[in-house]
Amino acid sequence: MKEPKLLPTAKDKTLFTPGPLTTSLSVKQAMLRDIGSRDDALIELLRNIRVRLLTLAGVTREDGYETILMQGSGTFGVESVLASVVPRQGKLIILTNGAYGERMVRMAAVLQIDATVLRGPESQMPDRQVLRQTLSANRGVTHVAVVHCETTTGILNPIVEIGQIAKEFGADYIVDAMSSFGAVPIDVKRACIDYLISSANKCIEGVPGFSFVIARREPLLASEGRARSLSLDLLGQLKGFEDTGQFRFTPPTHVLLAFDQALKELDQEGGVEGRAGRYRRNHEVLLRGMHKLGFRSYLEPALQSYIVTAFHYPDHSNFDFAEFYDRLRDKGMIIYLGKVSQADSFRIGCIGRIFESDVRALLAAVAETLEEMGVKVISGV
Amino acid sequence: MKEPKLLPTAKDKTLFTPGPLTTSLSVKQAMLRDIGSRDDALIELLRNIRVRLLTLAGVTREDGYETILMQGSGTFGVESVLASVVPRQGKLIILTNGAYGERMVRMAAVLQIDATVLRGPESQMPDRQVLRQTLSANRGVTHVAVVHCETTTGILNPIVEIGQIAKEFGADYIVDAMSSFGAVPIDVKRACIDYLISSANKCIEGVPGFSFVIARREPLLASEGRARSLSLDLLGQLKGFEDTGQFRFTPPTHVLLAFDQALKELDQEGGVEGRAGRYRRNHEVLLRGMHKLGFRSYLEPALQSYIVTAFHYPDHSNFDFAEFYDRLRDKGMIIYLGKVSQADSFRIGCIGRIFESDVRALLAAVAETLEEMGVKVISGV
Repeated sequence: MKEPKLLPTAKDKTLFTPGPLTTSLSVKQAMLRDIGSRDDALIELLRNIRVRLLTLAGVTREDGYETILMQGSGTFGVESVLASVVPRQGKLIILTNGAYGERMVRMAAVLQIDATVLRGPESQMPDRQVLRQTLSANRGVTHVAVVHCETTTGILNPIVEIGQIAKEFGADYIVDAMSSFGAVPIDVKRACIDYLISSANKCIEGVPGFSFVIARREPLLASEGRARSLSLDLLGQLKGFEDTGQFRFTPPTHVLLAFDQALKELDQEGGVEGRAGRYRRNHEVLLRGMHKLGFRSYLEPALQSYIVTAFHYPDHSNFDFAEFYDRLRDKGMIIYLGKVSQADSFRIGCIGRIFESDVRALLAAVAETLEEMGVKVISGV
Repeated sequence: MKEPKLLPTAKDKTLFTPGPLTTSLSVKQAMLRDIGSRDDALIELLRNIRVRLLTLAGVTREDGYETILMQGSGTFGVESVLASVVPRQGKLIILTNGAYGERMVRMAAVLQIDATVLRGPESQMPDRQVLRQTLSANRGVTHVAVVHCETTTGILNPIVEIGQIAKEFGADYIVDAMSSFGAVPIDVKRACIDYLISSANKCIEGVPGFSFVIARREPLLASEGRARSLSLDLLGQLKGFEDTGQFRFTPPTHVLLAFDQALKELDQEGGVEGRAGRYRRNHEVLLRGMHKLGFRSYLEPALQSYIVTAFHYPDHSNFDFAEFYDRLRDKGMIIYLGKVSQADSFRIGCIGRIFESDVRALLAAVAETLEEMGVKVISGV
């Protein structure tokens, strides 16, 4: 059996991906502890994390919101919402313009939820007119779901407009804010969001191991008895936190310690606004540099978030993505393969503990790689 | 808002719990890295982990077994099996003599699985005669499930005998080996186990964040289309590993790095046998010391595992468990509350990176605490 090629002394590669991300050393060092799952210190840590996430979302318990942490990846968090709050006789509308919207479609199918899929092109915002018409024509729709920043392309969907339409028709509103929460301001109340899902290892810059849901308490309490899974029972999980202050089932203690530290570092950076500033600068440097190198962005600039950016493959016969990826990796830079179904593309993330200087280093590595591959470079960086 | 009482410079308390456990510093240090979820190094690490778990289970891919890692706690792993392999028209028998058996009963209810519950006293082994009669009377039973080491009491259930009866009647066999795997030898083939579930943070001494299933490939492949959850789809997860070498959804990368190191340290300790030796010594020292202090074990010695031990509360009016727990915690020792429903008890675990010397330190702390509380001590340690 081959030994894994993990040289403990080597510098880690910089991750220009949508996550797991590069995190700070101090976040990782917070994991150099062992803490009991029922320890008072952990209970206090959890309470603290749950309140701070509400604060980040701009809401409070007094306003009627709760934070529920859920073990597993972000997908587990999204499924915990769909599987727990949509009634067996409920009807769901899913707006999708990318892979993460499609993932909700697959979930609904497995969960046997009656779902209407409003599918649009990956390069365009969801059609609000069609949503309105569909809601008009189907008065029994109980839930509307959409992805905020669709990581497929980096498009930022108009969650406020969609939420306001959903509310007009009395539907509860589910937003997958996985890769935006913590770095893109979200007005939870104005957007009428009932359930917002994100994860530990995205813009808050923790390590992967749990997701979280910011939920409006009233519809959540009304979901009693709907859960289709014990592990992913959202209301059950909330009750666990309320009754004992603890997770119902073994918590990822080390990941929680890292997250606590990550939240502190987010505060130190100036919260959502401060972090948005750094990511935006990363993105601007990236975009300018990549365009200079002759790459074309997949999205129109007006639709593009500063979270992750999809680029078309260069129109050059020497370009081979696998080779491009490997050569960048050998230079210590990890980019991400594409998920756009309608174009050959790859993605570069601007999130995580990376700075302008890292982006400039990436651009230099890209320029060098293009030269090595004999792919025409329009101009220098 | 109160700041959590986590003093980063303080020595961690020793965890005498059923998990999360005290782990080695080197296991935790393995997490001081960031690795991309699609990185070749991670793919190799995963392949390696999956093979090594089969080796620990004494089976191979050639024999027809697979390892599937599943994000979340051990409960997520157990539910991934029940939710994925039992057909909608299937029938499940659950043998239960404790809280973890009861957890499977709750899962089956939420998953709407037709389950017959064979419930026995927590202080006794499951009744094999009743199992045989039930299987005789219900020829449509497709699955039988039991917990190996029921952490409620520490009882070690007779998984070989139960498995052989299940097989006589053609039922597939599910064993929750959460707190035994890695430290109690399990003959997967002789016990006719089709699905064995355990977790990263038990006897392998990793940190919490995922569970794993050792599955016989043939029944697993036959389970196509049965999954009741996307996240917890066991066959889907296997296909992900086979098709891309990767998790389908974001893996807990840091927890995986820790687990890889934990497996190496298990090897260094002499594998299952070596680890069993240390835990057995821990248990023997504990039992002798606690009996000297006047405590009575809940279980008959013949039924008792060396994993975790339940003790009756002392029969003394001054004894108060909350106070006892707090005083031990203030001495740096974390024990565990009881889960036995039929007796007032508490539990002490002998697993994790703890040694005889730690157990002796605990015994000294217990003796001191009893004195402080004015609870009669029969004799010194």
